Amino acid sequence: MRQKLNIAFDADDTLWHSENHYHAAQDAFTHIVAPYGPGAEQALAALHEIEINNLASFGYGIKGFVLSMIEAAVKLSGGALRAVEVQAIIDLGRAMTIHEIILLPGAREAVLRLAEDHPILLITKGDLMDQQRKIRESGLAEYFSAVEIVPDKTPAIYETLLARHAIAPERFLMIGNSLRSDIMPALALGGYAVYVPYELSWAHEAAVELPTAVDGRYHEIASLADLPELVTRLEQNLPESR
Amino acid sequence: MRQKLNIAFDADDTLWHSENHYHAAQDAFTHIVAPYGPGAEQALAALHEIEINNLASFGYGIKGFVLSMIEAAVKLSGGALRAVEVQAIIDLGRAMTIHEIILLPGAREAVLRLAEDHPILLITKGDLMDQQRKIRESGLAEYFSAVEIVPDKTPAIYETLLARHAIAPERFLMIGNSLRSDIMPALALGGYAVYVPYELSWAHEAAVELPTAVDGRYHEIASLADLPELVTRLEQNLPESR
Repeated sequence: MRQKLNIAFDADDTLWHSENHYHAAQDAFTHIVAPYGPGAEQALAALHEIEINNLASFGYGIKGFVLSMIEAAVKLSGGALRAVEVQAIIDLGRAMTIHEIILLPGAREAVLRLAEDHPILLITKGDLMDQQRKIRESGLAEYFSAVEIVPDKTPAIYETLLARHAIAPERFLMIGNSLRSDIMPALALGGYAVYVPYELSWAHEAAVELPTAVDGRYHEIASLADLPELVTRLEQNLPESR
Repeated sequence: MRQKLNIAFDADDTLWHSENHYHAAQDAFTHIVAPYGPGAEQALAALHEIEINNLASFGYGIKGFVLSMIEAAVKLSGGALRAVEVQAIIDLGRAMTIHEIILLPGAREAVLRLAEDHPILLITKGDLMDQQRKIRESGLAEYFSAVEIVPDKTPAIYETLLARHAIAPERFLMIGNSLRSDIMPALALGGYAVYVPYELSWAHEAAVELPTAVDGRYHEIASLADLPELVTRLEQNLPESR
């Protein structure tokens, strides 16, 4: 009998567009603060610094992003930011919570095909309510055997999830667009990882190096359309169960 | 053999103080907006209205609360709010994410005692990262067989949780300080509920009526110190398993 992998998908920018909404909001942010002097590049650098500093307090997701935009705008304006501009930033965030969910190419087909003969997990971080809304509106919720919304995607958190779902790390395959959050932790635990780059990435991603020496456990594909075939190939090469 | 209940605790204001931090932040908020004219009562009414309107976009927890305070302050100031005041509101929120966890009277003893011979769930809503921080720092994490952080506490969400943990509703006991989020949903599903009022409550709670006609499934206690004895009594009266 063919050996099976336990498959888990990241959500934002793996199954559906997300970062484009952050980029659009950031672009609007640079226009809001432009009258106070900073160019777009300086404004984004200041925002990025504040975002990273705020991760420990406010975590991932839209709400923390909005709070960081407000703080960055206060700072970049030298304290001259007007209330109407603060409200405009909050409204950018509110709009992000209702954007239409647009699936990435091949996402629906890959999930449906793999769900036929695999239990599939969804593992995502961000604001609880926002993530649940997106999963609901994606039309894919019914194909996942479980959905895990986590505060961060560290190796320790993956380890907890694998234990909870009784998944052996050497049978685990994580699919995602983030080297830091999806690929590196899965490889570190001894699992498989399929990297599907998204057209945009968050500045926080930039510092990660590609993994090496992982014995065929790391793969990169251009689109989820290529995933089912890759999974079949990986499963043909799995050792027999003990 | 004695029949057992499946016990679940709410977290904020049931096991540890939380609402007092919201109240303190609200109090500071009324002082920030006071120079623009509104009295404390008017300021809190405006904040409450915006909080309720924002629940659908931003959900529960500190980050949504901070965004609502900022929006309320912008509105109450007639658009004259200064950037330094916006920053002060964000700093109130950041302070809330690091406050010391102070357990409520009897909480530790009740959890330890019941955990000896029951699997115990923790069911809480709010910001993921914030809730996980509090659970970690409470010193009680190891006593829970599972922790569920949910975007809202509706009967449908409780139903999903009970199914996931294979708990029969008529063997489910929910303990909490919120009639709306803890008590009513548990009773609606046919389970037991123990109401432990907290000294403060969020204005959103005020409109709920006490349940009636629930055949001994609803109980109120003044402190968790009274819980273990109540659980013993309830379990003595449980019908035999089928």
